Amino acid sequence: MLADCGILAPEDAEKIREGLQEILKQVEEGKITWDISQEDIHMNIEKLLHDTIGPTAGKLHTARSRNDQVATDMHLYLKGKVQELVQLLDQVQRSILDQAAAHVHTLVPGYTHLQRAQPISFAHHLLAYFWMFQRDKERFTESLKRIDISPLGACALAGTAFPIDRHLTARLLGFAAVYPNSIDAVSDRDFIVEFLSNSAMLMMHISRLAEELVIWSSQEFQLVELDDAYCTGSSIMPQKKNPDVPELLRGKTGRVYGNLIAMLTVLKGLPLAYNKDLQEDKEGMFDTADTVTRSLRILAPLLATMKVNTSAMLQAVAEDYANATDAADYLTNKGMPFREAHETVGRLIRHAISSNKYLSQLSLEEYRQFSPLFDTDIYQALDPQAVVARRTSYAGTSPEEVRKQIELARKKCVT
Amino acid sequence: MLADCGILAPEDAEKIREGLQEILKQVEEGKITWDISQEDIHMNIEKLLHDTIGPTAGKLHTARSRNDQVATDMHLYLKGKVQELVQLLDQVQRSILDQAAAHVHTLVPGYTHLQRAQPISFAHHLLAYFWMFQRDKERFTESLKRIDISPLGACALAGTAFPIDRHLTARLLGFAAVYPNSIDAVSDRDFIVEFLSNSAMLMMHISRLAEELVIWSSQEFQLVELDDAYCTGSSIMPQKKNPDVPELLRGKTGRVYGNLIAMLTVLKGLPLAYNKDLQEDKEGMFDTADTVTRSLRILAPLLATMKVNTSAMLQAVAEDYANATDAADYLTNKGMPFREAHETVGRLIRHAISSNKYLSQLSLEEYRQFSPLFDTDIYQALDPQAVVARRTSYAGTSPEEVRKQIELARKKCVT
Amino acid sequence: MLADCGILAPEDAEKIREGLQEILKQVEEGKITWDISQEDIHMNIEKLLHDTIGPTAGKLHTARSRNDQVATDMHLYLKGKVQELVQLLDQVQRSILDQAAAHVHTLVPGYTHLQRAQPISFAHHLLAYFWMFQRDKERFTESLKRIDISPLGACALAGTAFPIDRHLTARLLGFAAVYPNSIDAVSDRDFIVEFLSNSAMLMMHISRLAEELVIWSSQEFQLVELDDAYCTGSSIMPQKKNPDVPELLRGKTGRVYGNLIAMLTVLKGLPLAYNKDLQEDKEGMFDTADTVTRSLRILAPLLATMKVNTSAMLQAVAEDYANATDAADYLTNKGMPFREAHETVGRLIRHAISSNKYLSQLSLEEYRQFSPLFDTDIYQALDPQAVVARRTSYAGTSPEEVRKQIELARKKCVT
Amino acid sequence: MLADCGILAPEDAEKIREGLQEILKQVEEGKITWDISQEDIHMNIEKLLHDTIGPTAGKLHTARSRNDQVATDMHLYLKGKVQELVQLLDQVQRSILDQAAAHVHTLVPGYTHLQRAQPISFAHHLLAYFWMFQRDKERFTESLKRIDISPLGACALAGTAFPIDRHLTARLLGFAAVYPNSIDAVSDRDFIVEFLSNSAMLMMHISRLAEELVIWSSQEFQLVELDDAYCTGSSIMPQKKNPDVPELLRGKTGRVYGNLIAMLTVLKGLPLAYNKDLQEDKEGMFDTADTVTRSLRILAPLLATMKVNTSAMLQAVAEDYANATDAADYLTNKGMPFREAHETVGRLIRHAISSNKYLSQLSLEEYRQFSPLFDTDIYQALDPQAVVARRTSYAGTSPEEVRKQIELARKKCVT
Repeated sequence: MLADCGILAPEDAEKIREGLQEILKQVEEGKITWDISQEDIHMNIEKLLHDTIGPTAGKLHTARSRNDQVATDMHLYLKGKVQELVQLLDQVQRSILDQAAAHVHTLVPGYTHLQRAQPISFAHHLLAYFWMFQRDKERFTESLKRIDISPLGACALAGTAFPIDRHLTARLLGFAAVYPNSIDAVSDRDFIVEFLSNSAMLMMHISRLAEELVIWSSQEFQLVELDDAYCTGSSIMPQKKNPDVPELLRGKTGRVYGNLIAMLTVLKGLPLAYNKDLQEDKEGMFDTADTVTRSLRILAPLLATMKVNTSAMLQAVAEDYANATDAADYLTNKGMPFREAHETVGRLIRHAISSNKYLSQLSLEEYRQFSPLFDTDIYQALDPQAVVARRTSYAGTSPEEVRKQIELARKKCVT
Repeated sequence: MLADCGILAPEDAEKIREGLQEILKQVEEGKITWDISQEDIHMNIEKLLHDTIGPTAGKLHTARSRNDQVATDMHLYLKGKVQELVQLLDQVQRSILDQAAAHVHTLVPGYTHLQRAQPISFAHHLLAYFWMFQRDKERFTESLKRIDISPLGACALAGTAFPIDRHLTARLLGFAAVYPNSIDAVSDRDFIVEFLSNSAMLMMHISRLAEELVIWSSQEFQLVELDDAYCTGSSIMPQKKNPDVPELLRGKTGRVYGNLIAMLTVLKGLPLAYNKDLQEDKEGMFDTADTVTRSLRILAPLLATMKVNTSAMLQAVAEDYANATDAADYLTNKGMPFREAHETVGRLIRHAISSNKYLSQLSLEEYRQFSPLFDTDIYQALDPQAVVARRTSYAGTSPEEVRKQIELARKKCVT
Repeated sequence: MLADCGILAPEDAEKIREGLQEILKQVEEGKITWDISQEDIHMNIEKLLHDTIGPTAGKLHTARSRNDQVATDMHLYLKGKVQELVQLLDQVQRSILDQAAAHVHTLVPGYTHLQRAQPISFAHHLLAYFWMFQRDKERFTESLKRIDISPLGACALAGTAFPIDRHLTARLLGFAAVYPNSIDAVSDRDFIVEFLSNSAMLMMHISRLAEELVIWSSQEFQLVELDDAYCTGSSIMPQKKNPDVPELLRGKTGRVYGNLIAMLTVLKGLPLAYNKDLQEDKEGMFDTADTVTRSLRILAPLLATMKVNTSAMLQAVAEDYANATDAADYLTNKGMPFREAHETVGRLIRHAISSNKYLSQLSLEEYRQFSPLFDTDIYQALDPQAVVARRTSYAGTSPEEVRKQIELARKKCVT
Repeated sequence: MLADCGILAPEDAEKIREGLQEILKQVEEGKITWDISQEDIHMNIEKLLHDTIGPTAGKLHTARSRNDQVATDMHLYLKGKVQELVQLLDQVQRSILDQAAAHVHTLVPGYTHLQRAQPISFAHHLLAYFWMFQRDKERFTESLKRIDISPLGACALAGTAFPIDRHLTARLLGFAAVYPNSIDAVSDRDFIVEFLSNSAMLMMHISRLAEELVIWSSQEFQLVELDDAYCTGSSIMPQKKNPDVPELLRGKTGRVYGNLIAMLTVLKGLPLAYNKDLQEDKEGMFDTADTVTRSLRILAPLLATMKVNTSAMLQAVAEDYANATDAADYLTNKGMPFREAHETVGRLIRHAISSNKYLSQLSLEEYRQFSPLFDTDIYQALDPQAVVARRTSYAGTSPEEVRKQIELARKKCVT
């Protein structure tokens, strides 16, 4: 660019370019030792360039400042990282879709308050996470607009008197846009905060799923079995499979929340333009990027290899009063107002509990003590399969709706 | 909708509608006292409806649950609030634009590390905040996609067996979309976390501006004077104008950060679907909404009425070595490599400081002791107006570029 | 004090005292309406005093400032609150001790990774929480040293020229000490941050206990049953007892974490002395105080009335391999090195699992296939009661040690 | 201990001890390469021990678990670290005391709202920080009670059947106490949260001081000059001294706040006993320990070498109306009620400002236009030295009180 704009003589530009390529080669070959006395990476490279091509190296830094160079590097890094995360999210979503597709008809209690509430399709439950990750994908994708933008040429803060072409450098570096204010360009770290916020939300989602995996893996629930690769046992207790990976994922949420608060704290009350406090922007960003990347990378195969204990799930559904709502709906459909049906079924269930029976085990006579509207079709109406199949409202848990949902979801996978 | 779908008889639906309108009227007239023994607002209204229209009131709650009703209310509230915030941001941006337009030619030191670095246009500095708020506006606007979506009809978690039309209720309530998974619909609070994240970033921006206003208002800086309406004095010290409003805005950042962490903490490790912990989603959301709304409402007129002390600014620019960079650029333009020019000017400045002079006060002989490239045009080159005018790179601080920037910015104001 | 030090004439002091008492009486009788135009409570009272006793009221504010008055009020409030919390913690600890005393011999699986690990005394598990709350009590008590200290007399920031006696006012207000630096006295909010930190840690403890109560209350675990007063059911699903209070306690952790971060954010980078940002110190403090007070108040009876499902606990202990460690210890005691014993038992358990038996169901022959060291005493050795009774190391889970622990714990209850 | 209690044969114990010492020697000589396939440090050492002394190595792990070992290590580490921090705090306090002792008579404006409020002794201002750090020292010291306590012997969670002596190991390792509950011993991480909370508060204090140093170092304030060692210049702008170290200290506050929130998040809702999430306890603790240690280490010499610009301070005091309070006190002392005096001086100042004079420049006639109580002694009364000297209330800013404060403070330095 400097040559194209007539700021550097073409031969100087060529010399610098060749020198830099030579240095890059040496770096890749591991031949370079960085020198702390040169203060930073920029000065190290300029020094190496000087050793390679002589005083022309002094022209390298024309029309730029470390302030805009550092910002440029971070934008480039985060752009690549966010694009990678979107792909990794896609892979996790595919694992979910594959498990969901296999378990459209697998019944499991839907829980509220960690209490069994209503029978649902296990696929339906898994798909709830699909949509959480979908929102993560949307947010990361939208954030690119504010990441994929070039600060280069803002120099220290005010721009430069050299007739540079900022749009050309932006194009050459693959940026979609250019910062329209040079002060903002060097002091903006919003794109990092936004990345940390989006990552915190993603980890929150992962922590919710991880919590469920830990609970489901307990001897008491036994709804799923994780592959050995994601657990540790104990040589002395081979029966014990500690769900280490879900626990670690859950724990790592803290680190990402912490990095978000760290950066928000750094920026609170910071005047323009560059302040040294901003040096604190890097570690939390890299740590978050690594944490989120690894979390998604392990989550995809963990979900893909998870064994679903369909019989335990079905038993949990059968041995429960989670079909109570449907008994009330049964009465409502036969004309009883909602509130009355609700109270009638309450009395019915109390009777069943005191008789130590589930609803399916009550006789028709017992039913009719509570309402003459009950008839023999009540048994079919309360069958868990029927209960689930009946919930055909849009986005409901019936196999029919769940299948449509899976189709819709597949279209959201971008890769 | 219940009538349209044949779930309620038309006459029942009409009766309920009329009953609800009567109750609304009484609420608006302040005639209703809510009864805590009825547990919540939903039950209160159903009770009132029962008192008004009799047992048909029992059909009101058909095919819905408090879980999806509460979620629906929060989506509706936040949609309106975010739309309002976008408008308020616009007003703040207009205040900035008006001040910027008036101060394109007002010079002020650009600071890094709170040290004077280079002279800039004051408009340019103010516009940096324009773009921060612009990103806030973008993020809030993008978040609407995840707020403007209806959970109604998800019922407790699984959907319903009643043949409801979720898209119809969504349309009637003005929602742009419908949740594609009923479990996600009732347990999703991401849209609140996203609102809190976006608000935290907005308050961070405000805190940066507030910090600058506090510093600029000190007797030592005296760069601006805030209108009395935003300060408190003391009857005994009428000369003292405490910049109360900027201080409060800066302080209120803490509250919004806190609300963000609060909600992230609540959701960490929370299994599906509804858990009572979610009741904690409201206060932090309302408190943040109020805080951000009020902050923007006061910031717009505060900026509009701010008096800019142009003479103090110019003096700060003149009595400084902030034009050092331009002395180096002067030499570079005459062919000296960047690094050498840089070092030469370093020596020149050290000489000037020890002679207790600014660069404008050095004689040409003194200049030439450091490089024969210096000539009489150096004085013009280092004049602050010229220094600023020369930074014509895209988004730089020259009046010409600043004016273009203002034009571009005006187009971003949506209202 | 002003009269004692000769700053006010005795008759003026008496007049002011009587006037203030009259105003207090009217406040208590609800006769006072505060006037927002008087700016704050201090000015309101001075105005009322003026209305009551005339111009002598103007002497009320001698040798003080709102800066030190507000700080004094907050110290007084927090001192009383922290003393109350210590007592409430004592009550929660007593509930734990009573349940523990009743369940020294109740066996339950000790969990790690939410996997059954070793049988323990349920009392032992509960007592772990006793010690957490004990540390909370210690920290709150220690913090009093920094709360129970008077800023009064620091005035705006520099002290006063009036010959006041700060130790006298401190004594009259019941303070244990006096701030030794007047600037620190008015700008210190550490005592609030410390209160918020201690409260955050306390809520974290409560959240851990609440999580366990929620899990234990699930149909799958069924280890405890909470009293109806702390749950909500549903009229339609009377079998469902949602553990609302534990869920709310767990959720309220977020709010207290948030208030801590809010205050830390406010104080970050705040120069001395008073800044208006400090006005943000109140709401988070009061909200935290209320939250923690209510949480402890409900937790004490919730724990006291909790029913322990001893048979479900025993069954969980029996139907498990949690005695594996003891099989290894058995071999170690007979001379086998720890690692070898560990591996031997690993093989034994694998055999048992594949035979679909628990260790108690294996024959002696089967045992001896793995080591000749096994003898008939292995059955007694692996009996859960024996396993627990054997852990007599200090602070271990044997009934003997647990009883000693309860005795030690009782001595820590201060009220 | 194992030998003393008869659990290991003396010769085995001796063999293990010798083996471990040999391994330690090799570690110190850098001869050991850790093997990731051995899972962790414990297993690595046991493997090395096995290579060194053969199968007796298998007895090393008798009566312990990695759960209690890791906890023990962290307690030992943090105990040493906290003791070191107390000493480092002492050094910072000594730097403050030395500067304070040198500047008892140096006048500077005391600021509120970053506005000049009243003249104070610069020593007095610095000493405010002494007391903040004193509270930090107290809190760290008090926390030792909860750090200096041994979990060793708690084993996995339940204690052990081996007749170990936990008090003996505690004594041998230098611990002051032993955990009274084995489950709490292995799952407690409160001592880390407390360390992080105390560190967050300490960094908050440092950030306040750092903010002041940055502001004081600006060209506009120029109240202090930091030693070059703590600043960076620019070769081109040698006049520019960026206060890098204060900026970094201020920025590092974010990291420590973040680590606190990270750990609080990890522990929120975590059931007993050990969960893998706890593995996240280390990095934040080490990072905080390093950050705080380095911050204090650099702060002590930075403060010691700071040059105080006494003439700029005095000028700031003289060219101000900060003695207005004393004009009112002057009138109050002559019998005018506080409020009336307050208002009279308000009018006086307004007159002075409109006449473009400071109070010292008004004639007696001008004074008497506002009150006949003014006399020639008003000039002496308003002299900044007199104004400061007069504030002799306990802990006030008069040189006399400041000197007493320094004496009191010296006694708080423990090393």
